[in-house]
Amino acid sequence: MAKKRIGILTSGGDCAGLNAVIRSVVHAASHKDWEVVGILDGTAGLLQRPMQYRVLTANEFDGNVMRQGGTILGTTNKGNPFAFPMADGTLKDRSYEITDGFKELNLDAVIGIGGDGSFAILSKLAKQGGINMVGIPKTIDNDIGMTDTAVGFDTAVAVATEALDRLQPTAASHDRVMILEVMGRDAGHIALAAGIAGGADVILLPEIKYTIENVAAKIKSVKDSGRNFGLVVVSEAVKTLEGAKYEVEFADGQKRYGGIGNYIGMKLSQATGSECRVTVLGHVQRGCPPTYNDRLLATAFGVKALQLIEEGKFGRMVAWQNRQVVDVAIEDAIAAYQEVDREGTLVHTARALGISLGD
Amino acid sequence: MAKKRIGILTSGGDCAGLNAVIRSVVHAASHKDWEVVGILDGTAGLLQRPMQYRVLTANEFDGNVMRQGGTILGTTNKGNPFAFPMADGTLKDRSYEITDGFKELNLDAVIGIGGDGSFAILSKLAKQGGINMVGIPKTIDNDIGMTDTAVGFDTAVAVATEALDRLQPTAASHDRVMILEVMGRDAGHIALAAGIAGGADVILLPEIKYTIENVAAKIKSVKDSGRNFGLVVVSEAVKTLEGAKYEVEFADGQKRYGGIGNYIGMKLSQATGSECRVTVLGHVQRGCPPTYNDRLLATAFGVKALQLIEEGKFGRMVAWQNRQVVDVAIEDAIAAYQEVDREGTLVHTARALGISLGD
Amino acid sequence: MAKKRIGILTSGGDCAGLNAVIRSVVHAASHKDWEVVGILDGTAGLLQRPMQYRVLTANEFDGNVMRQGGTILGTTNKGNPFAFPMADGTLKDRSYEITDGFKELNLDAVIGIGGDGSFAILSKLAKQGGINMVGIPKTIDNDIGMTDTAVGFDTAVAVATEALDRLQPTAASHDRVMILEVMGRDAGHIALAAGIAGGADVILLPEIKYTIENVAAKIKSVKDSGRNFGLVVVSEAVKTLEGAKYEVEFADGQKRYGGIGNYIGMKLSQATGSECRVTVLGHVQRGCPPTYNDRLLATAFGVKALQLIEEGKFGRMVAWQNRQVVDVAIEDAIAAYQEVDREGTLVHTARALGISLGD
Amino acid sequence: MAKKRIGILTSGGDCAGLNAVIRSVVHAASHKDWEVVGILDGTAGLLQRPMQYRVLTANEFDGNVMRQGGTILGTTNKGNPFAFPMADGTLKDRSYEITDGFKELNLDAVIGIGGDGSFAILSKLAKQGGINMVGIPKTIDNDIGMTDTAVGFDTAVAVATEALDRLQPTAASHDRVMILEVMGRDAGHIALAAGIAGGADVILLPEIKYTIENVAAKIKSVKDSGRNFGLVVVSEAVKTLEGAKYEVEFADGQKRYGGIGNYIGMKLSQATGSECRVTVLGHVQRGCPPTYNDRLLATAFGVKALQLIEEGKFGRMVAWQNRQVVDVAIEDAIAAYQEVDREGTLVHTARALGISLGD
Repeated sequence: MAKKRIGILTSGGDCAGLNAVIRSVVHAASHKDWEVVGILDGTAGLLQRPMQYRVLTANEFDGNVMRQGGTILGTTNKGNPFAFPMADGTLKDRSYEITDGFKELNLDAVIGIGGDGSFAILSKLAKQGGINMVGIPKTIDNDIGMTDTAVGFDTAVAVATEALDRLQPTAASHDRVMILEVMGRDAGHIALAAGIAGGADVILLPEIKYTIENVAAKIKSVKDSGRNFGLVVVSEAVKTLEGAKYEVEFADGQKRYGGIGNYIGMKLSQATGSECRVTVLGHVQRGCPPTYNDRLLATAFGVKALQLIEEGKFGRMVAWQNRQVVDVAIEDAIAAYQEVDREGTLVHTARALGISLGD
Repeated sequence: MAKKRIGILTSGGDCAGLNAVIRSVVHAASHKDWEVVGILDGTAGLLQRPMQYRVLTANEFDGNVMRQGGTILGTTNKGNPFAFPMADGTLKDRSYEITDGFKELNLDAVIGIGGDGSFAILSKLAKQGGINMVGIPKTIDNDIGMTDTAVGFDTAVAVATEALDRLQPTAASHDRVMILEVMGRDAGHIALAAGIAGGADVILLPEIKYTIENVAAKIKSVKDSGRNFGLVVVSEAVKTLEGAKYEVEFADGQKRYGGIGNYIGMKLSQATGSECRVTVLGHVQRGCPPTYNDRLLATAFGVKALQLIEEGKFGRMVAWQNRQVVDVAIEDAIAAYQEVDREGTLVHTARALGISLGD
Repeated sequence: MAKKRIGILTSGGDCAGLNAVIRSVVHAASHKDWEVVGILDGTAGLLQRPMQYRVLTANEFDGNVMRQGGTILGTTNKGNPFAFPMADGTLKDRSYEITDGFKELNLDAVIGIGGDGSFAILSKLAKQGGINMVGIPKTIDNDIGMTDTAVGFDTAVAVATEALDRLQPTAASHDRVMILEVMGRDAGHIALAAGIAGGADVILLPEIKYTIENVAAKIKSVKDSGRNFGLVVVSEAVKTLEGAKYEVEFADGQKRYGGIGNYIGMKLSQATGSECRVTVLGHVQRGCPPTYNDRLLATAFGVKALQLIEEGKFGRMVAWQNRQVVDVAIEDAIAAYQEVDREGTLVHTARALGISLGD
Repeated sequence: MAKKRIGILTSGGDCAGLNAVIRSVVHAASHKDWEVVGILDGTAGLLQRPMQYRVLTANEFDGNVMRQGGTILGTTNKGNPFAFPMADGTLKDRSYEITDGFKELNLDAVIGIGGDGSFAILSKLAKQGGINMVGIPKTIDNDIGMTDTAVGFDTAVAVATEALDRLQPTAASHDRVMILEVMGRDAGHIALAAGIAGGADVILLPEIKYTIENVAAKIKSVKDSGRNFGLVVVSEAVKTLEGAKYEVEFADGQKRYGGIGNYIGMKLSQATGSECRVTVLGHVQRGCPPTYNDRLLATAFGVKALQLIEEGKFGRMVAWQNRQVVDVAIEDAIAAYQEVDREGTLVHTARALGISLGD
């Protein structure tokens, strides 16, 4: 087997388990005597001169790097290189700088750890630059298709469930309804899993339209049953009653999801007279140390990605399907958005328990 | 020793360790063959007819009750019984209903677990009703004087520190400044302890006046040193640059602290150009299972309270001073508000490390 | 739908998530207006007179019961009712007492939460007594066939991985090899998953025969690579070099697995000269609060079990297969023992990373 | 202020919080523009040629090093340099190699992070070599005098308490007595604190002589009260009924504490007929990530040590007394062994709750 030189980068929003992926690739590569080059800050590392990268050695992963959240390579969502936002406000195609960078680094292949957005860009870059690419799916949102799950999702749900575990006693002590807003972008996976596991009475998902009457009726029935508190989980992408996105304009001038929990709390308080308190969980869902499941998945994915490179199978995404690591065409994965299955086991389980999904 | 009948209630905002106090009192009382009556929802349990209370038995604490957050007795902050808010909007003195309740329950003494506000009311009730009272200090804010610490503080700091541990990797991955708003009411104890332990670069306390220039200068010096991220902890009671309270009007029409972290994030983003993200930690600081320290303190306090009753020492608050449980006059404790010591070890430690306190 | 009366019991070794199963059944039943009778201490509750059981109400699960380890119903492994060990040392068939008990309780069906051993007994009892039975698989060992996973496994692996996370820094500080012995009965699932996720260098499983030479060679190669410490995970059922079971005679006169980690540590220390320390993790793997995954699984299983009863499908075990809850013939599940797949993704992943499996 | 060059080393058994001490010293030094030299593996780093050390920079602590267990400097207990065990079995005075090393490194002062044994050696080395030394106390055992607590103790108690939390549900599920053996060397501090906080029925300490009759009587009274399980905590240094040390000969030929829990379990099982299970907690008490308290203490200690050096106060140990960091003569600290106070608040609290201390 010829010695190879592999590039690796993390792209898009960070999550737990990225370092475990990187460590897996570097360790498995070291056993093949291959070299791994870590590109810093996603593709942005190749937009700088000098380019930002470094050769990764197995020994730097001796300690607890794999046990940490975040990514030692950094990641950016500073912009699409095909339409990069310049300081003067214009958009510029800087993709050739990246493909030139790949060539200069003399890479046999690049492993991109990202979500669907990153994969779409990386895939286009790879084709344009004649680069061999393999994708590893990561996202706390679990919205990437063709894989049961992606790196980072398990930890995010664990953190969200833990928050419900901590809110329940204070809700009960004060006769309150506690509303927890969780991440998930346009998908309700985190909310649904954490809500069932964490004992929620109501779970609001972007995939299922709610009314405040339904939510209020559930809270009232809980109180009628003799219980003095309620737990409500809301996905960040849930819309207002008028169907609008609830976005907040941040200091950087960008609008982002966030805060719909406050809206639901206000409406629910008005509808029921219950004392409501809202927690917007935020970035602790991303930065938490990875669960064993995320590390296991990350490790299996890293190994599989190297194997694909060894076999010359490019343009593929590694995936987890039915207890096995497999590979799929990356275009298929990008195309196959995964939302909550309205007829699946989890939704059915929630309904059978009497959890209101708002509909 | 004559058999006694003791009342116990939790009052004010809940926190971790309350169940451990209750369990300690009930267990220690059972070894004296005394009876303990749990009054529900603070003094509010005595404003209802029939009164809401129940005899507590040692066996109900066999399981993991002491390991749980919240209070099995419930607590309310529905209002001062000397000026109770009635449905028609008027205030009414309902204190005699409570003192009548105490008499009807035929109690030798009442143990009130609360903060300074609760103690002031309970103390007044006790005097008015000829009730013997002992106080046990609890507050996540650690603002009660004459005791090194109170039940609930240790857990709240642990949760806040854990949040910083989780925010650091995602901050580093994305070159961000992460701002964490923590509780503490008018005192900065949680922010200061969690900030030092959690590796914060900036800690803003209500006790120390800040300027955004100072905060921005610290963040810039961090970046100049080659580090790409920053961590900022903000106490909920920190004021705006104009010196105003930053309160949010909630759905119930009440204004409460909360959100100053967003204000700081906005100002800091403007001043530094750094990408800032804000996490308002909220009620998970209250409802988390108690740390061993909070359970140890709770247990020692419960035992001491019973001992005071046995010795006929009333109008006292149990306290922790220099590795020992002691007792102090409850009026002295109410009067002795504890804020962050601007010349103490923690402030000195923070400054020596180069942490900016904003001044 | 006619109102039904369902029995439920937990049998065999306890694990995390049992209370979440019970809560799921009770909650889902309450929405059908069915009654659930909890039988105490497995089938042993029906061997006593008066029989030990109680009707379970939805409200007792309002608090954090589902978040706790253990089982509120109790469980015993005091003996096979078909050959029950009597005080005089003889074995007696007491199975009719149990089937009589079922009849007396007037149950439409019984839900047995157990492992393969419990299912074999329950299944036989059900047939003999004309009882309708549904099984829910639980085991930290994950050795039950026809289901991807069982209640309790995820938590056990999480605890074992956490132990490795805690052993790594002290191993590195002292240049030591740390050996962690984990549970798993005759299967290596816990060891394999925790070992990969926790960064082990060596994982010894009952399914794969090891030599000390191979283990020592891996530890030496680790040290040659410049790393000063090693992590070794050993399943409790791993045998000695001579192929013998390593069992310890306990104070009750019974022999049980346990301690093979000490044996491996001794052999490895002799073979390598490395300072070895052994941790036998023990019962904390069982009693830990359930992870969200175990609670999710438990909840889906409880709902499915009720559905099977509603549909009149008896003699079935609920199972998790490929992201869905399904049901299988309980005899098939009992027959289909699940051991570590020597050609599966996890074993392949471990080998590709250079982890020694001892062979 | 003249620029200084400070050495730092960790010595003796590792514990949580050591990295937080090192980080504090390096950060605080960097603000004085002083240089910090980390000596590797305790004093052993100076017994090698070339000597093993490296200059520590503030930036290496940017990430989560302070949040990790262990010590990045390594530590050894390979032997007293005044009587160093040589390969040929003889003992040799190698102390001059170390003092020569200190001189060669051109250090203004050395900060030794250790326990009483390490301090005795370091103190002697310092005097002999004309070295300026300051000590920072660390030990999970909390047996160092003149300081309320030392780095590492809080985390060790937290881990031990967590183990009890996990053992309680499985004990209750199986009607068992769970015995937990914890560390602590010759002092019972960990056992006492964890036992009270973790709801133990019996706590056995080296400072208080027990009889099995007393322990068995407590377990019987627990069962008579209607509770079906018991929790027993045993310090590793508790002796057998005959007053002998219970030590185990390890593979390296050395005898160490460990296993007395098994002895107590056996005796208790015989005395009560209860099913007993034993967990020997082991090294997870050392390697766990530090609690916020340990990090806070570590940080304050690091700052104070630098201040002492700045003020020219040598031969001192930093200490925590009554909410403040202070300094004491290191000889006084070495002389003032701290055992459990038989008349202190914790012992009194345990007795009042009915916890048996075996006497």
